[in-house]
Amino acid sequence: MMRLSVSAGLSRVVYPAGANPYDAYALNPKGELQADEIRIDVTSINLDSTSANQLLEKHQGNEIHFLMEVRKIVAERGKMHNPVTNSGGVLCGVVSKLGKNRNGEIPLGTRVATLVSNTLVPLFVEKVLGFNRAQHQLEVQGFAVLPPFAKYAKLPGDLPESLALSILDVCGVVPQVERLSKPGSTVAILGASGKAGLIATFAAARAAGSSGRILAIVPNEAQSRALDAAPAHVIPIICDARDAVTLENRVCEATQGSYADVVIDCTNCTGVEIGAASCCRDGGTVYFFNMATRFQAAALGAELVSRDIQYVIGYGLLPQAEERALALVRSEPGLLSKLKSE
Amino acid sequence: MMRLSVSAGLSRVVYPAGANPYDAYALNPKGELQADEIRIDVTSINLDSTSANQLLEKHQGNEIHFLMEVRKIVAERGKMHNPVTNSGGVLCGVVSKLGKNRNGEIPLGTRVATLVSNTLVPLFVEKVLGFNRAQHQLEVQGFAVLPPFAKYAKLPGDLPESLALSILDVCGVVPQVERLSKPGSTVAILGASGKAGLIATFAAARAAGSSGRILAIVPNEAQSRALDAAPAHVIPIICDARDAVTLENRVCEATQGSYADVVIDCTNCTGVEIGAASCCRDGGTVYFFNMATRFQAAALGAELVSRDIQYVIGYGLLPQAEERALALVRSEPGLLSKLKSE
Repeated sequence: MMRLSVSAGLSRVVYPAGANPYDAYALNPKGELQADEIRIDVTSINLDSTSANQLLEKHQGNEIHFLMEVRKIVAERGKMHNPVTNSGGVLCGVVSKLGKNRNGEIPLGTRVATLVSNTLVPLFVEKVLGFNRAQHQLEVQGFAVLPPFAKYAKLPGDLPESLALSILDVCGVVPQVERLSKPGSTVAILGASGKAGLIATFAAARAAGSSGRILAIVPNEAQSRALDAAPAHVIPIICDARDAVTLENRVCEATQGSYADVVIDCTNCTGVEIGAASCCRDGGTVYFFNMATRFQAAALGAELVSRDIQYVIGYGLLPQAEERALALVRSEPGLLSKLKSE
Repeated sequence: MMRLSVSAGLSRVVYPAGANPYDAYALNPKGELQADEIRIDVTSINLDSTSANQLLEKHQGNEIHFLMEVRKIVAERGKMHNPVTNSGGVLCGVVSKLGKNRNGEIPLGTRVATLVSNTLVPLFVEKVLGFNRAQHQLEVQGFAVLPPFAKYAKLPGDLPESLALSILDVCGVVPQVERLSKPGSTVAILGASGKAGLIATFAAARAAGSSGRILAIVPNEAQSRALDAAPAHVIPIICDARDAVTLENRVCEATQGSYADVVIDCTNCTGVEIGAASCCRDGGTVYFFNMATRFQAAALGAELVSRDIQYVIGYGLLPQAEERALALVRSEPGLLSKLKSE
């Protein structure tokens, strides 16, 4: 395993000196490319959903103010690290230079996307060229520097680039859902109509098989239509996931009191921790993929449900996450067309 | 399983209406005891270590200002819920009244401690009588109301009350460490000289057995003396756990590059997430018992270490946690005398 001192890009930390890149307030994307780095000419930035929503809400949907704030954050911090949500998303572009220790790793000109959070990656943005609001993607001109820790993937040729990028942003949920969902499992997906939620729903439906049940929790009737193409053992439940009491009642009814074996929180809002716990059976697992999750609310608030539940922090870097997520989307026409239509 | 609508004490929520007790800003400890509640005449409040440290630091160690702020928080919120750390601790007292549905559950006058967080429990404090700073315990006169979710334990007769309370405050770590540590495991305990850390160290030493290794991470030489009575396979490592690069190097050396199978974060400060990840092998588990853990730093910052690690949120309500923690302390004279001496 490569050590942090070698792989983490510590020489890019500006302030505070000695911090790791996540905790650093500012990184320096400029200056000569180091021997173990790769430079990407960045063409788009995919904000994570929690960050995009926070910034859009702050600016009451005004896209110009929103874009100028993203630009200001990147200029000030040298990375797209939202200081309120402390999350970032991923980015994509073209490999433009290889440090000498990484010679031959990938051809120059290859289109790639990062698989690690933008909160860790030195980034410079020269121009903001456009905004795809539905996908939370900014079209930009700029560059990023990838130290050794920063995994990336070639963009596949068979999918539109913005779609591929948005799949890669949430690809870590696929191997986690596959690990947790056993054949016959009851799996509850909170926020099932969002991008991560839809992908998680299809992944769970396949892993649990038709002897399993997928409870797809969506906030309203309109959102439940996102699940029209899902397999028959996906059962939509309309409920605000922040209303733990109502959610528990709905899940209890739908499962005749046995609750879910596994709960995957794919929402992007604060206040879902206790609702997530309330869906889960004693001895089950709750997986928080939602970047607005509060550690303390999950650790302490969940005591309200009085069950022995494993609470797991969502984490993206699982083996083959990108291949498995892309393979899932390609093999599920209903999922693919739904993601394309957004 | 009891539903939230029945067990969570929702009728005690003052503001915002409809919130659950954790997310509620204020609870109402006064008013008639409901049929499913128990009233405790509270004699002491054990703040969790993260909360106590935050408040003591804020008041630069001035105990009067510190105590007056605790009193103000409880008066305003109707619970001991630190608004900065969002954590609370536990409390103890004497059973003084049983709601009619709980008749016969426990004799009036029994001394008990709560096993759920103070952030969830309606509490009224009339007087603050004293402060045991080493244990973060306030001696008070007041009362608390326990709805059905709020588990409690009888205080054991064979241990000093303040010691028993401080063991019960962190007892959840024992069954988790026992589950995670297999015979022969390498287990790293961060913050091994604190109360939770010491208990976790002894629990891990026993579960991993003498074919295992326990790496006890402590911040300085003086703190390492807390481990003098630990078994021979407990190896103290002196390092600030917030310095991820140095910590990784020390753990890599101590394990000849194999790292820890399991990492237990028992510190009480912010900024340990990446250090915790850096100690852990690919395929291992990091368990965050530290209430100052930041969800986003664990989910995203941990991508810096590029390993497939399961990050688990510390949670106190495991079966028999209190019996197992007390049994451990009773059977380990070195641990008992160390905890008594604090």
